[in-house]
Amino acid sequence: MSRYGKRADVIVHELEPFNAETGLAALAEGPVTATDAFYVRGHGAVPEIDPATWRLQVRGLVERELDLSLPTLRETFREREVTATLQCAGNRRAGLIAIRDIPGEAPWGPGATGTATWRGVALSDVLAVAGPLREAAHVGFEGADLCPEATPAQRFGGSIPLDKACRREVLLAWAMNGDPLPAVHGAPLRVVVPGYIGARSVKWLQRIEVRSMPWQGYFQHVVYRLLPEDGTPGPGAGMPLGLVALNADVLSPADGATVAAGPVEVVGYAFAGGERHVARVDVSIDAAASWSQAELLDDLGPWAWRQWRTIVDLAPGEHEILVRAWDSSAATQPEDEAALWNPKGYVNNARPRIRVRAVA
Amino acid sequence: MSRYGKRADVIVHELEPFNAETGLAALAEGPVTATDAFYVRGHGAVPEIDPATWRLQVRGLVERELDLSLPTLRETFREREVTATLQCAGNRRAGLIAIRDIPGEAPWGPGATGTATWRGVALSDVLAVAGPLREAAHVGFEGADLCPEATPAQRFGGSIPLDKACRREVLLAWAMNGDPLPAVHGAPLRVVVPGYIGARSVKWLQRIEVRSMPWQGYFQHVVYRLLPEDGTPGPGAGMPLGLVALNADVLSPADGATVAAGPVEVVGYAFAGGERHVARVDVSIDAAASWSQAELLDDLGPWAWRQWRTIVDLAPGEHEILVRAWDSSAATQPEDEAALWNPKGYVNNARPRIRVRAVA
Repeated sequence: MSRYGKRADVIVHELEPFNAETGLAALAEGPVTATDAFYVRGHGAVPEIDPATWRLQVRGLVERELDLSLPTLRETFREREVTATLQCAGNRRAGLIAIRDIPGEAPWGPGATGTATWRGVALSDVLAVAGPLREAAHVGFEGADLCPEATPAQRFGGSIPLDKACRREVLLAWAMNGDPLPAVHGAPLRVVVPGYIGARSVKWLQRIEVRSMPWQGYFQHVVYRLLPEDGTPGPGAGMPLGLVALNADVLSPADGATVAAGPVEVVGYAFAGGERHVARVDVSIDAAASWSQAELLDDLGPWAWRQWRTIVDLAPGEHEILVRAWDSSAATQPEDEAALWNPKGYVNNARPRIRVRAVA
Repeated sequence: MSRYGKRADVIVHELEPFNAETGLAALAEGPVTATDAFYVRGHGAVPEIDPATWRLQVRGLVERELDLSLPTLRETFREREVTATLQCAGNRRAGLIAIRDIPGEAPWGPGATGTATWRGVALSDVLAVAGPLREAAHVGFEGADLCPEATPAQRFGGSIPLDKACRREVLLAWAMNGDPLPAVHGAPLRVVVPGYIGARSVKWLQRIEVRSMPWQGYFQHVVYRLLPEDGTPGPGAGMPLGLVALNADVLSPADGATVAAGPVEVVGYAFAGGERHVARVDVSIDAAASWSQAELLDDLGPWAWRQWRTIVDLAPGEHEILVRAWDSSAATQPEDEAALWNPKGYVNNARPRIRVRAVA
């Protein structure tokens, strides 16, 4: 057993704050990721919160400020459930680090993502009671976790556009996969913003702030921004991340594996953020000269990834298996991983490739 | 002067039905495309409609069927204006045809797109009066234009998800760039679906049909679908197009142009469909070894393209100018145009490249 009730097979990148990704085998177990295998991305120590005295504050550009206890939240608003994939903006960073080092950033593989069923209330229902004022354009979230890496040290936070916040899929969640939300995942209450980078799904939520401008804190105004290759992180530099870009990776076989020649099952995931969904996944074993279509597995709704599988026939020898996903706008992934390198190592969504050796 | 009041410099692909694209110089004149230069994509003859007897029918899964005259539409609903880019799914098909011929499809260059200010009423306001029933999930549009190319011959039509139809940017428009909608652009009334392929902005609208399923007519169920490279068009084959994929092209200099060596201005456009916007445009003159950022020009709001410009310094000799746009999800364009080839030649959104010769 790893820390925080996580399985021994999670890949721990940092013990304090705890950062760990799901192993590929655990991701491949099914379309919903087990809670004890679900990835954790934290910027500060898990805060100790007494649920009895905890209150959710709703502040900022609202007609009515609110202070809501957990029982009030549960009794006042309709309970809702959404199955949604979360994905860290640093997912697959290891591929970029292999091109050029990114000091100070964890080498996440393809397991900084997972899908869970979240239960709670719709943020939009809470906002409707608070009554956003005319100047409201963004909804900010602040957690209880103090993050020493920020300059200055501050609680984790971020915002999403009001338009997104008013959509019913955005939850204030207290349960994950049918169980109470674990402490490491944000108990007593976290935000779940389906289709957005994981950093907007703020854990240990204690304050909602309705704003005219996007969040000016460190975790949105300085980091979680895409810089050009030669850029330098700084306040407002680069483009803020938000919507998740189309991405995919292979879960099995493992990169570098030796497999039996003949029919080989290849499985993986693909995820399209925002209003888009995964429409097709292609696999090539001849360096993109030809492609076959993978089977898309369980459809868990508009906010979840699609796992996929296919069988390729491999003769004895070395092979490269290439994958490209397509979303519902008919956009596909960029080919060249090196061209995506950026100083913080975000959004590696190049089409995945693995090498395997087939033996007779 | 070309037909239908279009300028002589439009590039006519077909006289009947009339199909013509905007010349690059006309697109480069500014962020709003002049009506007399705006591209036309038609599948049937421009129908003759008497606005005095014309009625908009609202049918299907609604509490109340409606038959609305133009004066009733104008007097009953709030007038709204949206600046939106329309883009044909076949835009930039010429690049795919250069790789392998696509018989029967027009070789559109980068001018099957344009931006206009549209005025009319919100579809959502009309739907609110009709009252979609619980089973409603899509909103179909049928024009008055009979299209002999369809099997069987039928009026042009298509649908969008109800969720999109309920957003206030989707218009039933009677004016374009401040003037009455020209006949060739759909008078007396057309749909404008910002962020979706042009084919969903149905012209000469005569019937709205609220449905449980997407449109089953030829122009959504057979064509305007992305097939795999080896696919065959047929009912339901391939993925339906809808949201526009991130795209960009160069407007000046022209591909193959000879320019004076030294500082050369490069201008173009970039467009991201749906909820996304253009976040960055990069230009390279050294085969993608390094990139500089272009200046993004006038921001006409969330539904319009961004034109961009930059200055590159060209020594005497042959040069290739490469461009890649990024959208607000940090997604960029795929590199390889050949890998995007598909039997109907849709959605060529490879990063653009032009060749120029600089002379001292």
